[in-house]
Amino acid sequence: MPAELPVTDRTRHRRLRDQGRLARTDLEAILDAGFVCHLGVVVEGHPMVVPTVYGHDGADLFLHGSVASRSLAADPEAAVCVTVTHVDGLVLARSVFEHGVNYRSAMIHGVPRRVTDPEEKLRGLRLLTEHATPGQWDYARRPSRKELAATTLLALSLAEASVKTAVGPPDDGDGPDAELGVWAGNLPLTATWGAPVPDPLLPAGIAPPPHIAGRSGTQQG
Amino acid sequence: MPAELPVTDRTRHRRLRDQGRLARTDLEAILDAGFVCHLGVVVEGHPMVVPTVYGHDGADLFLHGSVASRSLAADPEAAVCVTVTHVDGLVLARSVFEHGVNYRSAMIHGVPRRVTDPEEKLRGLRLLTEHATPGQWDYARRPSRKELAATTLLALSLAEASVKTAVGPPDDGDGPDAELGVWAGNLPLTATWGAPVPDPLLPAGIAPPPHIAGRSGTQQG
Repeated sequence: MPAELPVTDRTRHRRLRDQGRLARTDLEAILDAGFVCHLGVVVEGHPMVVPTVYGHDGADLFLHGSVASRSLAADPEAAVCVTVTHVDGLVLARSVFEHGVNYRSAMIHGVPRRVTDPEEKLRGLRLLTEHATPGQWDYARRPSRKELAATTLLALSLAEASVKTAVGPPDDGDGPDAELGVWAGNLPLTATWGAPVPDPLLPAGIAPPPHIAGRSGTQQG
Repeated sequence: MPAELPVTDRTRHRRLRDQGRLARTDLEAILDAGFVCHLGVVVEGHPMVVPTVYGHDGADLFLHGSVASRSLAADPEAAVCVTVTHVDGLVLARSVFEHGVNYRSAMIHGVPRRVTDPEEKLRGLRLLTEHATPGQWDYARRPSRKELAATTLLALSLAEASVKTAVGPPDDGDGPDAELGVWAGNLPLTATWGAPVPDPLLPAGIAPPPHIAGRSGTQQG
């Protein structure tokens, strides 16, 4: 993978306010920080946007394909768009017009490939599982042959991707509105893992393993 | 607005695991709990999914239209899909196959309308601003005529919408995998507002107003 993300018609940044970032490490950092993406497909000419889980290996994004299967069934060459967004907080300016959101977002375009080889499927599911819950692949029961066959997994190249972020304070601190005496700044938003909640059917005496319990209180995103 | 959301080809639920919820109050609760949506448009046959802010009045969703303007310019009758998702945590089962995510998601389909009337635009921007930061419309400087003209605002009817949620513990607590002795349950994820961070250019002595300061420590979503 080249270190710089290629600029295509779809990934060129059109808005001035947001900072387009082109380094591949920025893309991977955004992908690493989340586990739910929004998958966009075209079904009979209409856009459909559905949340789904993903994992990646730096070259491909792997995602559960049940949702995209309709559009893929209709057209195996159908392009998708996958967007991962982290909302970091509100930008509260002196004027309503300058209000905004601080965020980090990655957008990936491409034609996904249905993963059919059992070995690759297992590898993709491992990436997906470990991405959402590191340590869980070696802890939970792994997919059986039958479960593997029942899972639709898609691989989407990370070759055509773009990253957009907005950071920092509002823009109107040195303009005429600064005279208004209005408070301005950021209101941060943080996603935090809570304490594990045991399944009510879990027998007494089974404690959450360290890779799950240790996440409580840590930040997601 | 009818209390039940209509079932159309696009909003019918196809997956068994997730619970489709049809009450309009459920839709509004999901919209109320967030302020960033993922807007899906079709540009030259390709899907594009972009995060953007929104507000609503129970009948229409209002959203910033700069992103959708390209697709609208090409086809004023172009349908969009807007999805709002709250990720509530991980579903950690005994088997990898039964893992999942607890979430609340709303999907709205329709052809957006460009809001041009200045009064309606002002009303839509008020909804959008108050949705993200209640109290801010009466606190910050409101849009000037020029700023209003420079803002592209779209209205999208909430008539065709669907809601999907997944809640509760994993499904494999009464199956053969329950014998494995593996911990299972939920790992909750919560988004919380932090303390206001003043703009470095803010003069000393301007404290954040109660509608901003009072949000710190409260849950978003």
